[in-house]
Amino acid sequence: MPPFLSGRLWRAVFMRTRGERLLAGHSRASGGPGCRLNLRMLKGTASKWNQLCATHCVSCYILGFPAPSPSYLQAAVQQWRSEGRIAVWLHIPILQSRFIAPAASLGFCFHHAESDSSTLTLWLGEGPSRLPGYATHQVGVAGAVFDENTRKILVVQDRNKMKNMWKFPGGLSEPGEDIGDTAVREVFEETGIKSEFRSLVSIRQQHTNPGAFGKSDMYVICRLKPYSFTINFCQHECLRCEWMDLHDLATTENTTPITSRVARLLLYGYREGFDKIDFTVEELPAVYTGLFYKLYHKELPDNYRTMIGMH
Amino acid sequence: MPPFLSGRLWRAVFMRTRGERLLAGHSRASGGPGCRLNLRMLKGTASKWNQLCATHCVSCYILGFPAPSPSYLQAAVQQWRSEGRIAVWLHIPILQSRFIAPAASLGFCFHHAESDSSTLTLWLGEGPSRLPGYATHQVGVAGAVFDENTRKILVVQDRNKMKNMWKFPGGLSEPGEDIGDTAVREVFEETGIKSEFRSLVSIRQQHTNPGAFGKSDMYVICRLKPYSFTINFCQHECLRCEWMDLHDLATTENTTPITSRVARLLLYGYREGFDKIDFTVEELPAVYTGLFYKLYHKELPDNYRTMIGMH
Repeated sequence: MPPFLSGRLWRAVFMRTRGERLLAGHSRASGGPGCRLNLRMLKGTASKWNQLCATHCVSCYILGFPAPSPSYLQAAVQQWRSEGRIAVWLHIPILQSRFIAPAASLGFCFHHAESDSSTLTLWLGEGPSRLPGYATHQVGVAGAVFDENTRKILVVQDRNKMKNMWKFPGGLSEPGEDIGDTAVREVFEETGIKSEFRSLVSIRQQHTNPGAFGKSDMYVICRLKPYSFTINFCQHECLRCEWMDLHDLATTENTTPITSRVARLLLYGYREGFDKIDFTVEELPAVYTGLFYKLYHKELPDNYRTMIGMH
Repeated sequence: MPPFLSGRLWRAVFMRTRGERLLAGHSRASGGPGCRLNLRMLKGTASKWNQLCATHCVSCYILGFPAPSPSYLQAAVQQWRSEGRIAVWLHIPILQSRFIAPAASLGFCFHHAESDSSTLTLWLGEGPSRLPGYATHQVGVAGAVFDENTRKILVVQDRNKMKNMWKFPGGLSEPGEDIGDTAVREVFEETGIKSEFRSLVSIRQQHTNPGAFGKSDMYVICRLKPYSFTINFCQHECLRCEWMDLHDLATTENTTPITSRVARLLLYGYREGFDKIDFTVEELPAVYTGLFYKLYHKELPDNYRTMIGMH
């Protein structure tokens, strides 16, 4: 068996961060004494961190079985340190996790883990680590489903709360789900009402949230337009579900502060034009990645949008 | 040594999720054959998931050294399954990580990991897992620092981009940092300009972001008011930094689509009132957690805010 395919196979690749692209070419190079490394170059494009890391970081993928012994990693870290590397990224499949504790004893700690792999980092540079962090926020979305024809708004009372306050149906975004899609999905799941996204009317940011595993929470309230009206609410989640007059919701004490505030915003929008309260949405292509994104802001009048004839 | 203090110590606690509180009382109970478990009860309060999990989940903390053998966990899982538990949460300190691979071979996978511990989950219920996910978004913030007196806006060109497009200074939020604070900090770090938060003018949501380790990205643009004007920009990050006339930024091609769009929004706000484009902020206390949150929405006129005399 050639040495490259032995049990001590690692792959070391330069760090992937924001906006990077994998190049087709790759080369083998030594990473530390006694250590067989397959170096694959990544080209940084986007962020300040990329540029730094493309030349100063090392990223290792533990692929083979058995994984390299801790002494190999220790020797490799010494080598990288002497080369002036500033950080090491270590990607470990879950079934190779016995390699984590020895790495931790060298100073590695978890950057993140998901599903069947974990990523550890070791900062070798000066001062505190400047490595980019992992996702910091969960996103929750509520749907304020308002029927302009009847001035009624859809509200629920959670089954599990001590105080049964009226609030908007909603829940956490699934990975990769757009805000508006979460609102429509959660409204349907909780109440049976079909609706479509109109606008984003409020955002709340809250930190060290116990329900977010200590991370931060971004809670977005969307204005939705109903296109079905017969309530068929989820008995597991909701105690009650009603179409309530918007003025009543704006003045009742039996609701949360944020629901009350948004009810008043909606009343203002209903009476004086929803353009007064709405961030509307547009889908646009990203410059570098080829992905699309959703952009929310106040509706821009056509003359400002095109700037034609504007001085 | 009493058995409770032996090397096979586990603590099993019911799951912690959104809004839960630890109760003072706790009790010991068996978790699986041969397994010594110290059960601590947590009371669920807030979410639909809490209620489900408070009675149907088991959460284990691997505390002792050596950690329990895989056969103990296997037996415990069988026991929990027979009891009708729907999920197991396994919290493992990084130095006990050799316990991860055997758990994975029983079907556990990573829920998340950070710093010096990881959390694995095993879904025992019917159908696909209904366990809540971990943080899904990173939050980036840009500061559009606009001086109304001169109609100038602060723009930079990144040092690391191929095309040197004018854009607003900004960067990723630190854990626990408010959006507005990120904007002010990043503007100061990149440009040397001191400023204060005025409003939130645009939000972009983008998924499967390579720079976010495959997670989603929420990018918020804030309007800031400068209170210093002498540029002293970071040479590492920026190639250029200028105070540019807002109309020029709104019409130049040498900028990103989102910067151009926001420049036009700001021009609209400058000419017709910033209340047309702003989501302003307010800090409010959370009902359940005792934490404070920041709430952003269109400024609400006083009569709608108080509802006094409103019918």
